[in-house]
Amino acid sequence: MGYRVGIDLGGTNIAVGVVDSAYRIIAHHSVPTGAEREASAVIDDIAAAVDAALRKVGLTTADCACAGIGSPGTCDSERGVVVRAYNLNWFDVPVCAILSEKLGIPVRLSNDANCAALGETVAGAARGCRNVVMITLGTGVGGGIIIGGSIYAGMHSAGAELGHILLKMDGELCTCGRRGCWEAYASATALCRQATAAAQEDPKSLLYGVPEMTGKRVFDAAEQGDETARRVVERYCEYVAAGLTDLVNALAPDMILLGGGISRQGERLLEPIRRYVAAHCFGGAQGAVPRIAAAELGNEAGIIGAAAL
Amino acid sequence: MGYRVGIDLGGTNIAVGVVDSAYRIIAHHSVPTGAEREASAVIDDIAAAVDAALRKVGLTTADCACAGIGSPGTCDSERGVVVRAYNLNWFDVPVCAILSEKLGIPVRLSNDANCAALGETVAGAARGCRNVVMITLGTGVGGGIIIGGSIYAGMHSAGAELGHILLKMDGELCTCGRRGCWEAYASATALCRQATAAAQEDPKSLLYGVPEMTGKRVFDAAEQGDETARRVVERYCEYVAAGLTDLVNALAPDMILLGGGISRQGERLLEPIRRYVAAHCFGGAQGAVPRIAAAELGNEAGIIGAAAL
Repeated sequence: MGYRVGIDLGGTNIAVGVVDSAYRIIAHHSVPTGAEREASAVIDDIAAAVDAALRKVGLTTADCACAGIGSPGTCDSERGVVVRAYNLNWFDVPVCAILSEKLGIPVRLSNDANCAALGETVAGAARGCRNVVMITLGTGVGGGIIIGGSIYAGMHSAGAELGHILLKMDGELCTCGRRGCWEAYASATALCRQATAAAQEDPKSLLYGVPEMTGKRVFDAAEQGDETARRVVERYCEYVAAGLTDLVNALAPDMILLGGGISRQGERLLEPIRRYVAAHCFGGAQGAVPRIAAAELGNEAGIIGAAAL
Repeated sequence: MGYRVGIDLGGTNIAVGVVDSAYRIIAHHSVPTGAEREASAVIDDIAAAVDAALRKVGLTTADCACAGIGSPGTCDSERGVVVRAYNLNWFDVPVCAILSEKLGIPVRLSNDANCAALGETVAGAARGCRNVVMITLGTGVGGGIIIGGSIYAGMHSAGAELGHILLKMDGELCTCGRRGCWEAYASATALCRQATAAAQEDPKSLLYGVPEMTGKRVFDAAEQGDETARRVVERYCEYVAAGLTDLVNALAPDMILLGGGISRQGERLLEPIRRYVAAHCFGGAQGAVPRIAAAELGNEAGIIGAAAL
């Protein structure tokens, strides 16, 4: 009974892990989601993948206390329902009830960003912290809030849409339809757009005419002394840090974790961000400046966090 | 033992209330703070005011479970220390330990904005809500966060500096030293500044050359059909609502309460704000749109909230 199952349900793959009581993954099984099918067929495959993972270590669901699912989109954790997940094409799917009947154990649900934050808190970079904010810098800017060691998700589990706080009222148009959201400045997508625009003005830049801009490319060019890239990276770090400063002022977390592709830039990203937050947060360096670090668990955070729900 | 004492410690007055188990104030006593004196003299007066309030209803501290203090400035609730309160001239004052020894009952401490939010949650406009954000629109923009029915204050109780989230990066200079904070656009001070600037361009405006601008005056002129005042009020409501939208997206509270002088404008303020938040929050009207209302308890919220700590 000391084991738990974590399910990272993605638009492309279903990744299942069996974790022990120390939140170590002891078995793993992964299958394609096949999101073009009915939800019931996908849930059948989730149940089969759970059994497959357990068999690898000679266990059954009878050895497990519970299972947890991290799903994209809007999830209602209290009712166990995926309310809206566009890349699964799921609307109001009561996944917990269906899967719980198949597995014979309780099944819990939360948003994938929340699960990643919880995974890092129970077993990753934020171990031992009570109040944690995790920000994922990827195609968009995702967020998870841990308060008192548990996910904080607010009314209808709708909270922690942290990419959609304002950086500049009436500014850049965001994918959510609002103007000026943090995500429109601080996502990897935004960084590539900023770099492409700046390089267009500077034919001598290493980034001039680059067909497939990536965040890594921009950071690399800056490190190689490219002045345009350096200015773009400097400003981008200010955008990221300005939003983090808001979260420090509003929530005073013990720790802020950065995840997603851009977080692999490590200290090239973290050092300027730490400097900015300490200088700009309420009370300055005497204020409640939290530790700011990169997430540690990568894709495993979602599985471990789902298991810890 | 069913009674509690609430102390609203202000720069001008010390207001003490005795509350019953239903959080009704059954006795009240108020004395000037005399903040120019030593902290110990002020704390002596707090203790005397507590005794005076209790005597009015024939009680002593032996009838009370505990006392709570709402203080301005930065408070460390865990240690019971007022860390920095400029308008009391208090720095690192262990008020709970000193007062608890005088009264013979446990004494708790929180920031006054947090106490007001808690007071409204246990006995005011947010009764029955679990997650509440209260915003005070006054000289500045103050905030209190209630999560799961209790004050959320974060690391070193530094959280909920909600006036200091960004509305416009690099925008108006805020009193905290940062540029573009919500407070610099949404405080009563900011409204008066916006109205004075707009009226200067319009000699026909009712607000032209007004020597002592107040929030009420601007709202009244708008209601009387003054076009300049109408535009100022419309934009001001957008500023308030944009910050509230951020808090909805980040925290999805059940309810948002507005307090402070400007909140007395009631529906003239609330109706445009509700419309804006529903249109701009993540997921729009299908999102987690909370109830938005004016606080009910006025100055009593701080006393009741302190008693409920």
